[in-house]
Amino acid sequence: MLDKDVKDSYNRSAGTMRGDQTTFGTKLTNEDSNDPNTHTDIHNRINIDYNGITKSPSMEEVHNWQREHIKTNDQSKEGYPMNVIIDPAMREMYQVVHDSGLTNVFDRFSQQQPIQCKFCIEGLSCQLCANGPCRISDKVPRGTCGVDAHTMVARNFVYRHVTIGTSANIFHCHQAARTLKAAGEHPESGLKIRDPEKLKKYADMAGLNANQPIEKLAVEFAQWVINDIHSPYHIHSKAVEAFAPTRRKDLWRKLGLFPGGGYSEVAYAQTRCMTNFTSEPTEFLMDSVRLGVANEYQGLFLLDIIQEILMGTQEIVKKQQNMGLLKENMINVVTNGHMPLLAHVAIDLASTDECQQRAKSIGADGIQILGHVCEGQQLINYEGMHNQKGYGGQEGEWLSQEYLLATGAVDLFMFDYNCTVPTMPLYAKRFGTKLLSTHPVIQLQGTETLDFIPEKMKEQAEKALDMAFEAFKKRKSENRKVYIPPHKSDCMVGFSTESVKKALGGSFKPLIDQIANGNIRGIATIVGCTTARYGQGGSNIFKITKGLIENNILVLSGGCTSSVMEYTGLTNPNAADECGEGLKAVCKQLGIPPVLSYGACVDIGKMTHTAKELADALNVDTNKLPLVIGAPEYLEQKAVADACTAVALGWLVHIAPVPSITGSDVVVKTLTETTESLGLGKVVVELDAEKTIKIYVDHIEKKRKELGLN
Amino acid sequence: MLDKDVKDSYNRSAGTMRGDQTTFGTKLTNEDSNDPNTHTDIHNRINIDYNGITKSPSMEEVHNWQREHIKTNDQSKEGYPMNVIIDPAMREMYQVVHDSGLTNVFDRFSQQQPIQCKFCIEGLSCQLCANGPCRISDKVPRGTCGVDAHTMVARNFVYRHVTIGTSANIFHCHQAARTLKAAGEHPESGLKIRDPEKLKKYADMAGLNANQPIEKLAVEFAQWVINDIHSPYHIHSKAVEAFAPTRRKDLWRKLGLFPGGGYSEVAYAQTRCMTNFTSEPTEFLMDSVRLGVANEYQGLFLLDIIQEILMGTQEIVKKQQNMGLLKENMINVVTNGHMPLLAHVAIDLASTDECQQRAKSIGADGIQILGHVCEGQQLINYEGMHNQKGYGGQEGEWLSQEYLLATGAVDLFMFDYNCTVPTMPLYAKRFGTKLLSTHPVIQLQGTETLDFIPEKMKEQAEKALDMAFEAFKKRKSENRKVYIPPHKSDCMVGFSTESVKKALGGSFKPLIDQIANGNIRGIATIVGCTTARYGQGGSNIFKITKGLIENNILVLSGGCTSSVMEYTGLTNPNAADECGEGLKAVCKQLGIPPVLSYGACVDIGKMTHTAKELADALNVDTNKLPLVIGAPEYLEQKAVADACTAVALGWLVHIAPVPSITGSDVVVKTLTETTESLGLGKVVVELDAEKTIKIYVDHIEKKRKELGLN
Repeated sequence: MLDKDVKDSYNRSAGTMRGDQTTFGTKLTNEDSNDPNTHTDIHNRINIDYNGITKSPSMEEVHNWQREHIKTNDQSKEGYPMNVIIDPAMREMYQVVHDSGLTNVFDRFSQQQPIQCKFCIEGLSCQLCANGPCRISDKVPRGTCGVDAHTMVARNFVYRHVTIGTSANIFHCHQAARTLKAAGEHPESGLKIRDPEKLKKYADMAGLNANQPIEKLAVEFAQWVINDIHSPYHIHSKAVEAFAPTRRKDLWRKLGLFPGGGYSEVAYAQTRCMTNFTSEPTEFLMDSVRLGVANEYQGLFLLDIIQEILMGTQEIVKKQQNMGLLKENMINVVTNGHMPLLAHVAIDLASTDECQQRAKSIGADGIQILGHVCEGQQLINYEGMHNQKGYGGQEGEWLSQEYLLATGAVDLFMFDYNCTVPTMPLYAKRFGTKLLSTHPVIQLQGTETLDFIPEKMKEQAEKALDMAFEAFKKRKSENRKVYIPPHKSDCMVGFSTESVKKALGGSFKPLIDQIANGNIRGIATIVGCTTARYGQGGSNIFKITKGLIENNILVLSGGCTSSVMEYTGLTNPNAADECGEGLKAVCKQLGIPPVLSYGACVDIGKMTHTAKELADALNVDTNKLPLVIGAPEYLEQKAVADACTAVALGWLVHIAPVPSITGSDVVVKTLTETTESLGLGKVVVELDAEKTIKIYVDHIEKKRKELGLN
Repeated sequence: MLDKDVKDSYNRSAGTMRGDQTTFGTKLTNEDSNDPNTHTDIHNRINIDYNGITKSPSMEEVHNWQREHIKTNDQSKEGYPMNVIIDPAMREMYQVVHDSGLTNVFDRFSQQQPIQCKFCIEGLSCQLCANGPCRISDKVPRGTCGVDAHTMVARNFVYRHVTIGTSANIFHCHQAARTLKAAGEHPESGLKIRDPEKLKKYADMAGLNANQPIEKLAVEFAQWVINDIHSPYHIHSKAVEAFAPTRRKDLWRKLGLFPGGGYSEVAYAQTRCMTNFTSEPTEFLMDSVRLGVANEYQGLFLLDIIQEILMGTQEIVKKQQNMGLLKENMINVVTNGHMPLLAHVAIDLASTDECQQRAKSIGADGIQILGHVCEGQQLINYEGMHNQKGYGGQEGEWLSQEYLLATGAVDLFMFDYNCTVPTMPLYAKRFGTKLLSTHPVIQLQGTETLDFIPEKMKEQAEKALDMAFEAFKKRKSENRKVYIPPHKSDCMVGFSTESVKKALGGSFKPLIDQIANGNIRGIATIVGCTTARYGQGGSNIFKITKGLIENNILVLSGGCTSSVMEYTGLTNPNAADECGEGLKAVCKQLGIPPVLSYGACVDIGKMTHTAKELADALNVDTNKLPLVIGAPEYLEQKAVADACTAVALGWLVHIAPVPSITGSDVVVKTLTETTESLGLGKVVVELDAEKTIKIYVDHIEKKRKELGLN
């Protein structure tokens, strides 16, 4: 959004200081290395021991090692981070990067530990006003303004986490709606209306006339969504009215949790966070739950619907994941982020014979676009992506992006929206990757950014691919060495409300029967991020999921958790053999894995959709389902907003690590107990994987009992 | 907004813990004293020495002492806080409160100093994600995600300060617009359309048809405002288009700083603050300036216009200020906050003979409503308030509210919106004051809250006054002792664009002539809050203002600074004698003080309006004016947003204390240098009053030279 003049002038006037920053003039070894060829010297294959096999282990051997490793419970500080990293590609590349002294996420985590602030950990530090910063302790129980621990903790929770996460998900939905509108108004602009029936269905639910030309309907529905997002906080949201479960709406009305327009709600909540404003702690927590409702129905749920209209609903399919999909002699484009709108157009384009021929004309074997993080988890699932020649499969979770670039094989790294780490420009420079932001909402230091013009996506995608061609030519002309870890996992993906129902023969009844007869005890959604923490890094997700399927709990995944499921083999139908007897039988019968990848963190909107359909089929409120939501390695603000959504919908949400709310017993008690007594869900914090599994199992058994199931 | 069920259930289930909190069970002496009579023992008059006079000093003697005191420059830690508190009423009541061991703002500031965090002070601490909290130092130059000092500081600035402040000002405007709409739709609801000509003028500028019944026009204009606030960020704001200076709009367009709807802009900025999202530091700073434009034209400017339509434009008038206005045998209501909508209706009601008679019937001499903080600074200025029997004058700045309640003379403390400190429930309990929030946006622990229903303000105001009557009866029946410090200042207030122009004979030409001939060198607006800091507490504002008027610089005040101007005698026409010769002559000729109180911090919207009219009269861009904006004791987030507005409008903004941005030289340089090179304003940070005065004088002389003035 910033005019180029501003940046130029900024760069001019900031002078050498700015120069320092552009070259990342910090103190870490090699951070400012500017020689494009220096990267070659770090690319010596490092042999990792997988149960005694160090050279070219097969995926099966890696999977065996992963299972042995989590049993040893070696997650201590001493063996960090190689004891928590279980992705074979990342294990290799971490060693490569670390040994070269390059800044990277796991090493930075280690460096931060000695200087972590205990007040910040507990939420007892406030930096809002100029009388501060303040800290609260037993000896000094109030900030200068008079705020106590409970208010400080609750307020920090809202403005640092909930409003940011909610804004982001609604913003995503807003951009998707703008794109749908552009697809209706300018059918040649890039994305098409691939699922007109879905558009008609939801437009009808919104109260619009679905019997009109599909392009007109697209524009009308998109505008309806944009208007609802932008309505005042004091006017109840039409989207919540149209799409939320009836019993929930009644409860939200009663409790004052029925939101208005999401952006207005965010501003309302931010207003309350001012110094010397609201100081009743429960008000901040109830605002969080209300924002959780908006986060779902003006965010996740609708953005999923709109993206499916534009990219095709999910279809179950077999695909592959991990760095082994990169090809040294191909033009490798990685698309990162969460909003795969332009990326989808780029893949359509890269899939044309013309584009593949052009790649060959410059000496490449072809061009492929791979997804990364949640962007990729969405792309891998959409029907519109399947059988696209230009699509190369899925890379990894957010933790792996520095290591991915260190392969030297990525020619263009394009990104929109969140989960692109600030050090990408440093790696791009070091390893010859071209960076491109495709939405001004995300801008990195010294990095090119396209404006967001949904009406011109085709043009923009062409420009992006041009950059990839140029980068490949440069890589070849400079004869740059690459190293690609050979690992790739087979996985079955593409699960969603519709595709699951289709696989079941058109109704959820077979699934409900299996739950009723106890073959499947219940469902756990394992969603969200991965962290760099001791005991985490993917390990916690893997360990918990393993335990759940052994207990006959069907798992849905979404987010960076899906990558973990993929590189540990849990999304492979063979994983049925690792389940308890009941779940195993069901998986074998249907030929599915025990972990159904719904895709990205934003696909939580689809999981809540599935849950709603199950609740409707059972004629119960959503909070009655034998269902647990887990975010065993949550990282950021959207995950917090999503947890608030789950609380609003009446579900138990397990989270780890410990959020920064422990400084207030009132806040802890409200979120972990009081909310449930009101018919909402509740939060459970637990770091130990074994105890976590027991919490899930116990909750599901309790819910089964309440439903009269054995 | 929270349903009563939620709170009840919360209170029930939180059990004793909640009980502890309601009784404020912290460690400070006397914090949980619950005996309504214990307050009597602290009310022994404390004699303060004013140049040797300790008993009943006159205001003149107090003013002399203030002037002597600031010359001695005794603002050290050792004499704190009595060396920084120059308000005579607060000096007494601080001693009373402190000696009783009650928690209070100055003592809390002292308690926080030993545990302040150096990382937080510099903006180098981040608590956004679950890999943190992180701190940046020379040895550890990046957070776990990879964020560097520049990004961390700039991002903290946005989500901790700018989005909160901007949300709040726009929220205020939004509520004012809802009230205008209610006044049009339900003329008997409470507030009236007191300035129909102003409504017509601005509705016409907005492109509406002003030739329609005034009630219909009110509704249409109000809806136009609400719609603009709620428009998408990517569609240029109609309010900015209609009301901002043409040259500025061109610059903002060029620089990408022309905002869309304010709430959508806030959500956009919050989205960018997510972990692993935007990491280009200048982007955050440019977002801040764009939010500054929205803060003005969808916030301050329009809320002032709407409130004037409803409460009458300001008129110059002589009034009084300070605790001496409380009357032991009257029902004393203090109204606090920033949004004097319901308060105005309450004063209308209290001014009826019927209400005064009712007060007498219960043994009171009458009922009076006094304003406090910015709520009061607005009320004291509005034409609709003058000659209202039920209006008692102005109390103090935000720092004084705990001391005010300790008088025991306040029967009802009602508040809407910001600047009500979290300890009010504690003081209310201790001193028998009834608390009432009049907007759910602000809720205090265990405190009653009215819903915001502009259609029913009259009814609600009646309810509020009923509470005051009951509280007075209780005070009398319990025979509670009160102590009222006898101080009150005479002041001339009610300045605004229109009233100044009227005083000048209908045009700004006489003022421009005086600027041109050098009698007045230029204008400084001294606005914003007061802090509890060493060297501040009102002292810094007073010292700087004194220096400016001695240098023939006309001062406009707005915010808690206005209270300082009032209790130091600077808003008294006699203060003309303290000016340099040129300004003195002008003040004497017009019979005005050298400090023109525009009222509240939100009346900055009126100051920018005056500045725009001056620039128009001179046919120059706003950044050419010999004008400086100062916030010498800024406290909170609205002040930061207002500083961003000033930067957008091209002005030098002086601020103190030091904001938490010093951890990044890039951020500091951008805000203090680069922005000016782009035609925007810039920030200057200076703590020393003498140096500050020189900065203002030099800048004004520079601007005079550029305009060709000697």
